[in-house]
Amino acid sequence: MFETKIVPRVGETDITGHITHTVMPGWFESGRYEIFKLFVPDMDFKKFNLIMAHLEFDFLKEVVPNGDVTIRSRFGKIGRSSCEILQELWQHDQRCVTSRAVLVSFDYETRKSQPIPDEIREKLKPYTGKPSG
Amino acid sequence: MFETKIVPRVGETDITGHITHTVMPGWFESGRYEIFKLFVPDMDFKKFNLIMAHLEFDFLKEVVPNGDVTIRSRFGKIGRSSCEILQELWQHDQRCVTSRAVLVSFDYETRKSQPIPDEIREKLKPYTGKPSG
Amino acid sequence: MFETKIVPRVGETDITGHITHTVMPGWFESGRYEIFKLFVPDMDFKKFNLIMAHLEFDFLKEVVPNGDVTIRSRFGKIGRSSCEILQELWQHDQRCVTSRAVLVSFDYETRKSQPIPDEIREKLKPYTGKPSG
Amino acid sequence: MFETKIVPRVGETDITGHITHTVMPGWFESGRYEIFKLFVPDMDFKKFNLIMAHLEFDFLKEVVPNGDVTIRSRFGKIGRSSCEILQELWQHDQRCVTSRAVLVSFDYETRKSQPIPDEIREKLKPYTGKPSG
Repeated sequence: MFETKIVPRVGETDITGHITHTVMPGWFESGRYEIFKLFVPDMDFKKFNLIMAHLEFDFLKEVVPNGDVTIRSRFGKIGRSSCEILQELWQHDQRCVTSRAVLVSFDYETRKSQPIPDEIREKLKPYTGKPSG
Repeated sequence: MFETKIVPRVGETDITGHITHTVMPGWFESGRYEIFKLFVPDMDFKKFNLIMAHLEFDFLKEVVPNGDVTIRSRFGKIGRSSCEILQELWQHDQRCVTSRAVLVSFDYETRKSQPIPDEIREKLKPYTGKPSG
Repeated sequence: MFETKIVPRVGETDITGHITHTVMPGWFESGRYEIFKLFVPDMDFKKFNLIMAHLEFDFLKEVVPNGDVTIRSRFGKIGRSSCEILQELWQHDQRCVTSRAVLVSFDYETRKSQPIPDEIREKLKPYTGKPSG
Repeated sequence: MFETKIVPRVGETDITGHITHTVMPGWFESGRYEIFKLFVPDMDFKKFNLIMAHLEFDFLKEVVPNGDVTIRSRFGKIGRSSCEILQELWQHDQRCVTSRAVLVSFDYETRKSQPIPDEIREKLKPYTGKPSG
């Protein structure tokens, strides 16, 4: 499991006084930083060959502006050419948001999905399971 | 069905040259503007009593920076205290992103969900069905 | 002068109930859309050869979530290889934010600034002056 | 001087391959976190009595997606009811962006500016000067 700390900003609140859901994709993307590193170790964004096919959030509890946030990230199912990333947002010892993303390994030249190479697949295995499990 | 036009900004692209998925919640929120008006006609955001419980996106095709975007929005299932909003993002005559949101009618004072009033429920009916149907 | 309409989103408010200043660069970028078209008529963002060198905002009045916003945009000084863009944000008949941006015409291959071509310079002239003048 | 680390996200790049300037207000707001704490130690955002009156950026060098960013923040001039915050964005040992913000101490009830209390003024003094000085 990977853990990423996020410090909420004033500009990320909304009129309700809580954190607006519109910032969540950015926060959860920060949480996938170490995951992307497994695919592209030098983090050259131009080499990214993962396309987001699906993204979902369940909002269980409001995220408040006061109090650091931790994003926990793990892999779910790892398929031939796609993988599932399961993430949770924790604040004040409570799970506030869960997210599931499906990313597809993609060859930008042929414009087709491509298998996840075996050597990368091996690197992902230690990080599978439930984020909070 | 409601239609909302979005003109992509340079700052909404990412290194791949396409529109980053991180802006999608904001774009689809713009698409729900007329829907919110059915609940709160004067659009006083402080009266918003709809909480987002679930939000998901399927990314079918890359959204490119060149070319206006149309968000089409309709209601799906309307339950006792929650409703489903189905949205589609179209660009260059292609459906690029679909979204499903579940919003819950919420009483901020009692901190509990509350039934959608019948007079509002009636107003929603003409806008049910598939966004592109 | 160019005018661009912006409809504020819930997610663009902050805890004070007003629009957060953090969204302003995006809103004012939308306001420069027609200006960019003078430089790159087909709006192929990859051909953008304007680099932002300076950007400033004066916040005169709070922008509220209720009520459409208009961004008015004009050119200020047009130099040999740079130009100034003056913009104003109006809401409810009041000027709420002013902005000044300095953009430099840039050759990405030589990595140096380059003169604004005369034929483009001619196209900019009708759009100089104060945005609200 | 305060230092805040920022890890760039993919979604914060734009089509040029660099970080879009539209995220800068958010990044520099993160950099002012410890500064806000001097005014509101418990970081209850509702107690914020600082209004942004002016904000400017000079873009000296492109910010690239690869490589952590450090925001350095200090106070400039501290007036009777306003204060200047000087910030710098560093990446790969280079100063890439500088920023100057003017914040006004504001009484939301009377809707007027108010003097910065002496006990807070004392707390600010150790943090004056040039960010990189």
